Amino acid sequence: MTGWSRITAVDTYDIRFPTSQQLDGSDAMNPDPDYSAAYLVIRTDDPDGHEGHGFAFTIGRGNDVQTAAIGALRPYLIGRPVSATLADLGGMWRELVHDSQLRWLGPEKGVMHMAIGAVINALWDLAAKRAGLPLWRLLSRMTPEELVDLVDFRYLTDALTRDEALEILRRGADGRAEREAEILRGGYPAYTTSPGWLGYDDDKLRRLCREAVDDGFDLIKLKVGADLDDDRRRLRIAREECGPDIRIAIDANQRWDVPDAIEWIGALSPYQIWWVEEPTSPDDVLGHAAIAKAIAPIPVATGEHVQNRIVFKQLLQLGGLSFLQIDAARVAGVNENIAILLLAAKFGVPVCPHAGGVGLCELVQHLSMFDFVAISQTQQDRTIEYVDHLHEHFADPVVVRGGRYQAPTAPGFSSTMLPASLAAYSHIDLP
Amino acid sequence: MTGWSRITAVDTYDIRFPTSQQLDGSDAMNPDPDYSAAYLVIRTDDPDGHEGHGFAFTIGRGNDVQTAAIGALRPYLIGRPVSATLADLGGMWRELVHDSQLRWLGPEKGVMHMAIGAVINALWDLAAKRAGLPLWRLLSRMTPEELVDLVDFRYLTDALTRDEALEILRRGADGRAEREAEILRGGYPAYTTSPGWLGYDDDKLRRLCREAVDDGFDLIKLKVGADLDDDRRRLRIAREECGPDIRIAIDANQRWDVPDAIEWIGALSPYQIWWVEEPTSPDDVLGHAAIAKAIAPIPVATGEHVQNRIVFKQLLQLGGLSFLQIDAARVAGVNENIAILLLAAKFGVPVCPHAGGVGLCELVQHLSMFDFVAISQTQQDRTIEYVDHLHEHFADPVVVRGGRYQAPTAPGFSSTMLPASLAAYSHIDLP
Repeated sequence: MTGWSRITAVDTYDIRFPTSQQLDGSDAMNPDPDYSAAYLVIRTDDPDGHEGHGFAFTIGRGNDVQTAAIGALRPYLIGRPVSATLADLGGMWRELVHDSQLRWLGPEKGVMHMAIGAVINALWDLAAKRAGLPLWRLLSRMTPEELVDLVDFRYLTDALTRDEALEILRRGADGRAEREAEILRGGYPAYTTSPGWLGYDDDKLRRLCREAVDDGFDLIKLKVGADLDDDRRRLRIAREECGPDIRIAIDANQRWDVPDAIEWIGALSPYQIWWVEEPTSPDDVLGHAAIAKAIAPIPVATGEHVQNRIVFKQLLQLGGLSFLQIDAARVAGVNENIAILLLAAKFGVPVCPHAGGVGLCELVQHLSMFDFVAISQTQQDRTIEYVDHLHEHFADPVVVRGGRYQAPTAPGFSSTMLPASLAAYSHIDLP
Repeated sequence: MTGWSRITAVDTYDIRFPTSQQLDGSDAMNPDPDYSAAYLVIRTDDPDGHEGHGFAFTIGRGNDVQTAAIGALRPYLIGRPVSATLADLGGMWRELVHDSQLRWLGPEKGVMHMAIGAVINALWDLAAKRAGLPLWRLLSRMTPEELVDLVDFRYLTDALTRDEALEILRRGADGRAEREAEILRGGYPAYTTSPGWLGYDDDKLRRLCREAVDDGFDLIKLKVGADLDDDRRRLRIAREECGPDIRIAIDANQRWDVPDAIEWIGALSPYQIWWVEEPTSPDDVLGHAAIAKAIAPIPVATGEHVQNRIVFKQLLQLGGLSFLQIDAARVAGVNENIAILLLAAKFGVPVCPHAGGVGLCELVQHLSMFDFVAISQTQQDRTIEYVDHLHEHFADPVVVRGGRYQAPTAPGFSSTMLPASLAAYSHIDLP
């Protein structure tokens, strides 16, 4: 590896899996998703041969647009010196997110923001591979000063300043080595959504609930919000199969307006609900706060569609969520998720990542493990979503055993899809 | 015109004007914009030969992605019956915005949402041309029931229900003919941003201020937020040139964090400021509310980057704005802007549209004139931004005289760019 190597290519792939055929992933808002990835590979002329892999997750139509948006970032990458770029990924983030012309397309939201996230994550994959470490360990070894330099505090300072973030990270610096060892030994808690897709019939729900308990999960999640009687019946079945000690969360996938949410959740309150996820639009911070207040003590969880750190900041300021669900590929990558982890720590809210989809489990485990080692220092009420599909397409697939994510040990961000899968599921190859 | 004609083609154009050469449009966040349009033309096999023209506005890089997003909507349009589609644009809006796969790319924000807005606006242009009316008059003749059918109340009902919207529109049904005549006679108030771009020197600022007053404007706007001493000097110059009776607004283009905004605006408060525009991130509804409270009685204006009706709803609920600045091409077109006009009416907040850019003046005048005729019934504190550039590229350019927009009378949405301009400024022609 030399100091003079440069980025020579950014190849993009429009990858789509025909998941709608089995109704995997079906919920109240997404009846027939085709899980897809707008995927990129960053190549360099370094003799080490390492590549950076990253992607945005979509559910089918529009994946071509998402892929084109990633491709549009090529001019910002080609010819860039690899070492200098990877040594200042905070600077790279600012250059992309605050590009004065590109930001008109958001700002900091939607297709262009997710494209930047995919690129930033691919660069982190490359950095971790070059360091010979899984990303969570690479991040866990950075100093508090290095970590805050990755974060853009613009629009956050009324809730979290750089100095406050530094203080949080310095508190987390003690005992990092012990917590790293703890992760390597015992992994990180997982919960499962596999039993709960709306398109599954009651027998399949029963069987999958039993399997989940047998597999060691102590939290499962059901999709709700299409029909109240169905929701009641399915919650009853899940509770029967799981017994009283398993936690059951529900997920409405933004199905309701504020008054409907309050009424519907009220009707489900007898069923011992661990959290209610995405009760309404992810843009509605006031609505989340109104719902949270009305349905207390049932907690609200949200985040997989929250567009950026600025909206998370407000949800925390207003008490609109009690579980914060980061997504590895919705916001602008690792850097913005570090900002969000720090916000959650400031407000004392546990982070329980969204996962599933294509490769989201693979990515987000790194962020939660880093959170434990360097920020939150606890696994109390923390758990990462787990869905058992499409992992076979990844070179370093997640391993979940006994209801826990086992620590990834291969260098990188676990984002590398197998060449055979890229070839087999390419929808269109953009130039 | 027959009932059997269908949409046969959706042609897209990546149009870019090299405006950065003159620093037109330069502000604290956008030092060198190249005003651009991701443009589409909807063609049919109807013998009437009418086309629907629409566009999303961007400021340069990324306009190819925006154009690709519009192109991705082609399958929703090709082959559709023209009459039935135009007779139910509320249904068309819901089909596009709530497409379960596409909405993952937002939801309801950014590139994909703006693409839907461009398509919806092009369909309205076609509808108005077929009706032989300028859009503002076509909308002004629709019944309250027809108008609420255009609106999606999802995520709004905690602030505005369908019944409340109907009541607002029914109140506005009286005297529509008189107000239509008033618009045809006297037009609608305009204000000018032409003097105030940050890249202009003091002499140019002086000259343009004098010209603005001579041209009959009674409100001008200056860009601020790069340097406090510069802002003070430029406000002093503008006040000297304009005299005490001209209102002066300032626009920070999202430059500040919440604490900075409060401090900076405090330092400018001696200068008799009509409004402060975009003091911080458009995503920060709590931040806007905190700033509004701290700087009162100086009012906050915002909206050109507000992604959808859900965020406007919250800004209104929290008192985060005193002037609501709709943009014709940021949200999902005419339908969503009708929702926003109704929200503003419910909360009693004047709508003062954002314009400028490429063709935004041409579009938004129709919405304000419709607002006056059918919803607000007043021009009190209402005014549409006016910037004097790029109008020469449009077939039916705006006419601003004596500080007022003159009513457009040609059929359509004034969105049709001249074929010669499309040819001359095409950056890439996507297939």
